Amino acid sequence: MRNEFALIDAIVEGLGDRATGDWVSVGPGDDAAVIKTTPGLAQVASIDTLLPDVHFPAAAPAHLIGYRALMVSFSDLAAMRASPRYCLVSLSIDDTQLALGSAWVVSLARGMADAARDLGVYVCGGNLTRGPLNIAVSAHGEIEHQYLLRRSGGQAGQQLSVTGRLGAAAACVRTGQMLPVDPAVLTPVQSAYYRPQARFDVLAMVETASAGLDISDGLSQDLAHLCAASGCGAALQAASIPLAAGATLEDALFGGDDYELLVASDKPLPGAHTIGMLTAEPGLTLDGAPLASNGFDHFGTDQ
Amino acid sequence: MRNEFALIDAIVEGLGDRATGDWVSVGPGDDAAVIKTTPGLAQVASIDTLLPDVHFPAAAPAHLIGYRALMVSFSDLAAMRASPRYCLVSLSIDDTQLALGSAWVVSLARGMADAARDLGVYVCGGNLTRGPLNIAVSAHGEIEHQYLLRRSGGQAGQQLSVTGRLGAAAACVRTGQMLPVDPAVLTPVQSAYYRPQARFDVLAMVETASAGLDISDGLSQDLAHLCAASGCGAALQAASIPLAAGATLEDALFGGDDYELLVASDKPLPGAHTIGMLTAEPGLTLDGAPLASNGFDHFGTDQ
Repeated sequence: MRNEFALIDAIVEGLGDRATGDWVSVGPGDDAAVIKTTPGLAQVASIDTLLPDVHFPAAAPAHLIGYRALMVSFSDLAAMRASPRYCLVSLSIDDTQLALGSAWVVSLARGMADAARDLGVYVCGGNLTRGPLNIAVSAHGEIEHQYLLRRSGGQAGQQLSVTGRLGAAAACVRTGQMLPVDPAVLTPVQSAYYRPQARFDVLAMVETASAGLDISDGLSQDLAHLCAASGCGAALQAASIPLAAGATLEDALFGGDDYELLVASDKPLPGAHTIGMLTAEPGLTLDGAPLASNGFDHFGTDQ
Repeated sequence: MRNEFALIDAIVEGLGDRATGDWVSVGPGDDAAVIKTTPGLAQVASIDTLLPDVHFPAAAPAHLIGYRALMVSFSDLAAMRASPRYCLVSLSIDDTQLALGSAWVVSLARGMADAARDLGVYVCGGNLTRGPLNIAVSAHGEIEHQYLLRRSGGQAGQQLSVTGRLGAAAACVRTGQMLPVDPAVLTPVQSAYYRPQARFDVLAMVETASAGLDISDGLSQDLAHLCAASGCGAALQAASIPLAAGATLEDALFGGDDYELLVASDKPLPGAHTIGMLTAEPGLTLDGAPLASNGFDHFGTDQ
């Protein structure tokens, strides 16, 4: 590829019908994107960065990297109970990707387009620089303000529920199944890792929840965040934690990369898995014994 | 610093009154930020990444890096004639910065807060990862849809103007004055480089313009973008191009890092510098001779 602008053209072409549409009145090609908003709704905004060999294997197919990058970024919006609308992607690529001409970025863009189609959103803006591989996704949605699901709304005595089975992506990492991977035939744990689903489909299920978040950093660590924000502790029952096929209890508690929602509610939520309750006493317990709030920490290993 | 969350706390503290306020109803600390919008206005959104030794010297004071990162990202919104509102920052830092404990990120956050104060915006969300230094800023604003300044609205025969003197930042780079730098006593060219001003202050000046953009990639290259989008060519007069003190004509034409606006309008704009006009013939000319549309290209040097 000759230059930055030719690569950007290739990316926009790879995005296909996901570069603009519906509520996007200016998509790629100007100084900024322009998005029409829904009267009366607030904007919900979150940004995430994905790095090679931290958030995905550098050698994974670009299509899967793109799909995963978009989905995990939008999960934070589902965690607020918002509706997804659009995103911007700032991509830094290095010589490894550039050596493939436009093939790598086009494949990445197609993966992002697939995720955008599944989410009903547009990738209406972005930026391209040359540098160590880095994918930053700014994800945006809308919400009726009173419908916001905060971390801080939990109360002692409320039920804790998760919206699906846990630990499959962590099992994929633990058992070294991230590579090799054939995008056409993903195993279940590979699918959990590479094609996570931000849970916008369960927003009705969690409609009566009073606090919640996604558990991408691991159930115990994210539960500790909910407890800290709500001024509570929590008591979990190990037997109630729904394990995905191939996952251990440890994968589910500490593994991370699950994009299910963890919510607190007065009554059990139909279709969700009740795993314990919020307590007045601070701290986390599992079957009555103290539970560490470990999880993924980029900075915790050698500082 | 112990971990990611302690560093994030330090960053939020460094942001001070710029982490939340006014139209931000949920700032840092939940899954996503929540922003109240102005009824009837469209959202304008742009993302940029800044890399060490490409977009700033790695050894520059973090405060200046933070200020510059925010300002250059918001310039794209001024280029659409939008009003700035908020941004999200995704930061990857490596061991060089981590070795300084929280000092480096706090200084970066304070620089961002200074820029946010100058812009009247909030840095209401972000993300922190460990990896090669990378600063991605997603900048957001609002606009009355019919007031949008696109690249595509230019017509042959219109005047071309710029909103200020050009080439100072390029002169800073060319003459090696980026380092050493004392944040307390910036020279004029250092100030142009490290403390650029997104030109929201000239939006009234360019109110009657029919096309425009910022010229951060260099006057000739960005002019070529405006011409391509508008289906025109352009003829410039060298003597009319306003040079900053210390800048050469080459700095002004090809240097980049200017955050002035280049606009096309039927009549000269009071306070702006008329530098030429749009032509029916495609291509750029300077005093009648062909002008190359060179500028900054991350990918153009060795592909």
